[in-house]
Order: sequence, then C-alpha cells, then structure tokens
Amino acid sequence: MPEFRAGSPDQVTYLDELVDAGLLTRTGVHGLYARGADFESVRLAFDALVTRTAAPESPEVLCFPPVIPRGQLETSGYLGSFPHLAGTVFAFEGDEQAAAEQFELASVHEDWSAFQQMSEMVLAPAACYPLYPAVAARGPLPEGGLTLDTGDAYVFRREPSDDPARMQIFHMREIVRIADRDTVVQWRLQWRARAEELLRSLGLRLELDIASDPFFGRTGRLLAAQQRDQELKWELVAPTSGGHPTAVASSNYHQDHFGHTYELQTDDGEPAHTGCMAFGEERVVLALLSEHGLDLGDWPAEVRAALELDR
Amino acid sequence: MPEFRAGSPDQVTYLDELVDAGLLTRTGVHGLYARGADFESVRLAFDALVTRTAAPESPEVLCFPPVIPRGQLETSGYLGSFPHLAGTVFAFEGDEQAAAEQFELASVHEDWSAFQQMSEMVLAPAACYPLYPAVAARGPLPEGGLTLDTGDAYVFRREPSDDPARMQIFHMREIVRIADRDTVVQWRLQWRARAEELLRSLGLRLELDIASDPFFGRTGRLLAAQQRDQELKWELVAPTSGGHPTAVASSNYHQDHFGHTYELQTDDGEPAHTGCMAFGEERVVLALLSEHGLDLGDWPAEVRAALELDR
Repeated sequence: MPEFRAGSPDQVTYLDELVDAGLLTRTGVHGLYARGADFESVRLAFDALVTRTAAPESPEVLCFPPVIPRGQLETSGYLGSFPHLAGTVFAFEGDEQAAAEQFELASVHEDWSAFQQMSEMVLAPAACYPLYPAVAARGPLPEGGLTLDTGDAYVFRREPSDDPARMQIFHMREIVRIADRDTVVQWRLQWRARAEELLRSLGLRLELDIASDPFFGRTGRLLAAQQRDQELKWELVAPTSGGHPTAVASSNYHQDHFGHTYELQTDDGEPAHTGCMAFGEERVVLALLSEHGLDLGDWPAEVRAALELDR
Repeated sequence: MPEFRAGSPDQVTYLDELVDAGLLTRTGVHGLYARGADFESVRLAFDALVTRTAAPESPEVLCFPPVIPRGQLETSGYLGSFPHLAGTVFAFEGDEQAAAEQFELASVHEDWSAFQQMSEMVLAPAACYPLYPAVAARGPLPEGGLTLDTGDAYVFRREPSDDPARMQIFHMREIVRIADRDTVVQWRLQWRARAEELLRSLGLRLELDIASDPFFGRTGRLLAAQQRDQELKWELVAPTSGGHPTAVASSNYHQDHFGHTYELQTDDGEPAHTGCMAFGEERVVLALLSEHGLDLGDWPAEVRAALELDR
C-alpha cells in the first residue's frame, strides 16, 4: 500500500460534516467520493466562471478523457519525477478458463492481479499532458503560438488520504499557453493577477506561494529546490479543509521541456515553451464551503452572483 | 492484446472526416480521442436536455468519478459476465531503486509492468454501478423508492476499435430507479416513450431493439439469450457512424440482482428492484453529426432550438 496521508482531526471532522450534509458521499476507498447536487452545481458554476474569464483569449478547446496513451507517460518523464502518483490501466486478455479462475478469486476478494495485463493506457496525471503531443503532431505552431483549454478534465494522483482536499481523482481545469519564451512568461504573469482576482471575487482569502511539485525520493528534493529557485511554479493557497490552507490554483512553467520532448516548435522552428494555469475544481468548492458555510443558500449575494448560482 | 474490432471502410472514413473537421483528435490509441469545441458543446447541450427531461422526477444527483472501489467490481458479478471489458488501476509501491529501474524500462518503451501492483480501484464499467452500494449503505429505501441521476459519468469498456462509435472511455448519463418491482417496471415503460420522443425531437431516425449485453464466452451466450427472452434490455438504435445503426440509448432491468447483492431493501424490507435509463453521450453526438452534417451551423433550426445551441 502507498503511504496514507492521514488528515488532521479537523480535516477528518470536516469530511464528516460534508458527508452529513450530502455534499460528498464516501465510497469506502480513501480519496474517492461521489459528489452530491450542491457540490456539483458549485463545481460546474466555477468551471463556467473560468470559461468566461478565459474567453477574451479565445482558447482552443481540447477535452481529453481521464485515460491517455501509456506511451505519453513513458515519454514525458513523469515516471522519473512522480512514479508514486501514477496510475496504470490493466485488463484481462485470457480465455474462458482464465476468466473463470479470475472470477472465482475476485468473488471472495482474493488476489486476482495475475490475470491482469498492462494495457496501452494510463490515468491522466495532469490535464495539460496529452495536449503537447496532440499539438506537436500538427507541425510547427502558428505565428504567436496557441492558447488551449482542457475543459474540466479528470486527473489521477495516487495519494490516499482522509483529508477531503486530497482526492485520488478530481477535476483539473487548465488554460495552457504554447509559444516562444517571452510570450509564455508574460502570459503567466497576466494569469497570476487574473486568477487571484477571480478567486478573490468569490470571497476566498488567498496567499500566493512560490511552490514545488511533490517530486519522488532524494533526487526529487533537488528537483523541488531547483523548481522553487527558478520560480517555475506558483500556487494560490486558501483555507480549504478544516481551515487548513491548500493550493486551489497553480501555474507551472515547463520552459522548453515539452518543446524538446515532443519536437513541439514555434513558427520559426525553435523548441516551444509551455506554461499552464490550473484550477483544482473540487478544492475550490471545498474552499468556498469552508469560507461561506455548507448551505449554499446562506452564501453572500455577491458570491452567488459571481457564480451565477441564481440563473 | 484484446480483440481489435475493425471498423468498416465507411466507419474508418467517417473517423477521418471527424478528425479533419476538428471534432475529434486522435491520441494514437484506438478508441481514445480528444473532443473539440463543437463536439463538446453538443455533448453538453444534450446532457442539459436530459437534465430538463428528467426534471419532473426530481432525481437525486450523485456523481461518481471514473474510478470506483475494486471491491464493488468483485461483488457485483461484473467479472463473471464481462471480464474482457473491465479495466483495473495498478500503481507503483516500490523504493527509489525500483523507481529508477521502472523509469529506465519505461523511457525506452520496454515492459515495466512488473513494477506495478493492483490498487484498490478499478475503472467504472457503468455509471449506475457505484450507486447501488452507496444507496444500500443508507439503510432501507424511503417509501416509493428513489430516482437517481449519475450526471455525465465516464465509463470504461476495453473494446479497441477504429469505429468512432466504439470508444474505450466515454460519457454515460443514467437515470436510475430503485424501488419495488412494479414501480421499476412501470418506470422503464415510461422512459421508453420519453427517451424515444427526446431523441426524435433531435431529428434522429430510431429503431427500438430488444437487446442483450456483450456477455463473455459460451456461458455468456446463454445469459444473452435469457436476457433477450425476458426483455430485460432494450436499446434505441440510430445511424451513427458511417450510417451504421448503433445503440445511442438503452435501458436495463436488473430485477432484484443488486437488491440481493448489496442488501438494498425497500421500505417494507423486500430486496429492491432496479432499472436504469442510459444515454451514450458521444454516440448521440455522432448520430447527430451523421444525420445533420459536421457543420453545426447547418443543422435544422428546430434541432438547434431543442438543444438550446443558440442561447
């Protein structure tokens, strides 16, 4: 079993309250919940608000499913940095005899893993990952590069926890910029202000953090320090779960990593730079519930208006 | 590798046209596509139309993620009937040495499956499956039973194909009835008319089929015949992909299977009966594109109006 990240007592209590209010329903697996009507309506309202905020850029919509080609995970370098977070899809390829044996074991909850073979699919680790090879396959970028929108994509992170803000699968909405270096750097600065304004308009108390990704192992600590030194990642942090501050939005600058990995080129033949603006939708909902209470009817009128909850 | 279900020449040509029009983008894995803006806007418009159609029943919304507890797949009997369609989630649990070895193999696209362990999660095979244990955990049903709405849930079916209507992961929207026998039987009859009317209002040419699920192996053929004899499944079939008729909606009556499996009881302590009304959202979009053309602007005004595409 992977490391279990136990929630603090108030995070666990908060999860109980969310369940009692019908906002989330437990499944029996940590970090895997069903969302009730109120939770989902706020999530979709926030998603629509991101759409309105990004509209002036006219991003190209490209919605990938929660499962992507295994080859992309192998090529992207993800398994070097985050082997502990990845999920792979296995499936059955046997005959009727094997199916019967598998079924017999599974029916009594014994180990049937030997009957499962690795497929050509993995769970998507981030909404923007499958965009880069898809755009690279079109040839060099148009002049000025591209801005893309992943829609409300599901992503998977193997991090079992009873802190409701740490789910194993959740929606990440990303706006992505693929262009030359200066354009991407400038774009990320604009979105830093825009994302902060958007979340503040919902009454969230925010802090900006220069952050790092949860890289694996000893080498990972070096990578994290490097990422932080170069300010390649920032996060907007809000009280989310039992009042604990958690990242609800973040932006990564990958420099020309994906440009080199997928031979993704600008119109003048240089490796493209890439940056992304990501919103963790379930965490935004949790932050809103934490700030304004579990009954949406009691939320401040200006927050309900910003989310167009009364339309 | 599982059996590849090759599309007919006109299905493969239709996929090319969808890709050229930017409606779908290939990922390199058969049956795994990204959806472009037009495709996704029609899918969401249809999803909203189902919401409006089901509204008089006030179904309870319960949205499960694409990944559900493995124990539910083991308990439900799915692996007896559909072992070939299931997907399981594996993950890494090793140390830094193992991570380095896994990474080295993966980076050159060699076999790294030995480093992956079966997790407690599987891909959801149907939108309604996780509902039954969740509702059973609440205790006996209220009087009159329950009607539930899964939202636009992702489901996984291991069926690689280059027929665009056969995706390995897609959205299934289900309305589900859990109650006594007569109530469920009556409800399914009502939805048969309602679903047909809904899809005809979009200009689709439909046929109603008494159908069976794709059960595995020799025993499966018996189960399929039985299901058909008892009329436990019907489908609404429309020309979808290269003009070929494909199921775009279906309804299953599980009798008291889930009632027994999860001790799901009516208010008077009897095993509950369950039935579901399912829409394959990507297939509905493909049927609409097939019927009205790839340019949404050219669609009949009454279809655009029914989908509220001009709002």
